[in-house]
Amino acid sequence: MESRLVLDASAQDLLFRRARTADRFTGEPVDDEAIRAVYDLVRYGPTAFNQQPLRILLLRSPESRRRLAVHLSRSNREKARRAPLTALLAVDNEFHRRLPELFPQFPGAADLYAGNSALRERSALLNGALQAAYFIIGIRAAGLSAGPMSGFDEDGVNREFFPTGDLSALFVVNIGRPETSGERPRGPRLSHSEVCSTL
Amino acid sequence: MESRLVLDASAQDLLFRRARTADRFTGEPVDDEAIRAVYDLVRYGPTAFNQQPLRILLLRSPESRRRLAVHLSRSNREKARRAPLTALLAVDNEFHRRLPELFPQFPGAADLYAGNSALRERSALLNGALQAAYFIIGIRAAGLSAGPMSGFDEDGVNREFFPTGDLSALFVVNIGRPETSGERPRGPRLSHSEVCSTL
Repeated sequence: MESRLVLDASAQDLLFRRARTADRFTGEPVDDEAIRAVYDLVRYGPTAFNQQPLRILLLRSPESRRRLAVHLSRSNREKARRAPLTALLAVDNEFHRRLPELFPQFPGAADLYAGNSALRERSALLNGALQAAYFIIGIRAAGLSAGPMSGFDEDGVNREFFPTGDLSALFVVNIGRPETSGERPRGPRLSHSEVCSTL
Repeated sequence: MESRLVLDASAQDLLFRRARTADRFTGEPVDDEAIRAVYDLVRYGPTAFNQQPLRILLLRSPESRRRLAVHLSRSNREKARRAPLTALLAVDNEFHRRLPELFPQFPGAADLYAGNSALRERSALLNGALQAAYFIIGIRAAGLSAGPMSGFDEDGVNREFFPTGDLSALFVVNIGRPETSGERPRGPRLSHSEVCSTL
């Protein structure tokens, strides 16, 4: 099937086929420049009305990582402790304020969201998650491994890091070079026929 | 900055830097085998507890496309009409039923979601959107262009295609070879310093 793809096989392996979610990392640090290179690639991924709600908080200091750790599930606390860098991915709940500049071709876009907080929240979640996926792919494009985690107390993290309510946490992602010894086998994936159908 | 990336420059261009959201397509058809190759690549993208909530409905027949068109915003109706293939991306609201098989290492995962429909809905949205982004990247990996759209009546689409409530629509994605003449300039992207910060 790979022959139907234009992307070469080594890139397929790097981004999808061989890439694995990492639970354990080597001690090698991940510097801010690596994350800048990742962001400068994946920022081109599409979002609705070009809204780009994702915001990325890199937790580097021991203090910031302690502040996060208390809100993680126990197993995730251990994974984060072993990662050289942990990113808190959040969305800007007021993303619509930037739309006149980001999507000038539809001047009514900001008003559409301003008056409808349910629509705004859903849109921030969906588009922020799209961008989170681009970011995970970008981490792999940098030769690093990502360990995305959902097991945390969202309200607790939001109160701790975003007390004014302007941002909401989506995912926590550990980043580093994977320790591949003792890696678990990959979990099963749903087959094409289970997921895709044609009408 | 590209030098910090392991992914080669042509793959960066194919997936992110040169790739554009397409509004108009050439008449060249997109067959089911191309979508199978895309899915068989991107199914390896990570989701929480390996839950894989995404389901993909390929709307190929004139009848199925008419059923969708009435629920699209006017400008999106025109875009879908001109696309050789339109995919309806949805999530399985009962994804937790598959977890004993997909994530056997945590036998309690299904129960966690079974008793909490708000958590289940949020998780399906977030993880389905991650998978939608992997799918968009995969379409580009096949040398095709994606035109993801959010402008549609979700309730209308859900009633029309998923009357039993088992699935919920997330995005509609047009797929084909782009007609690049008259393409709009790319919208501005937020800079690294606007999106990323370090604590």
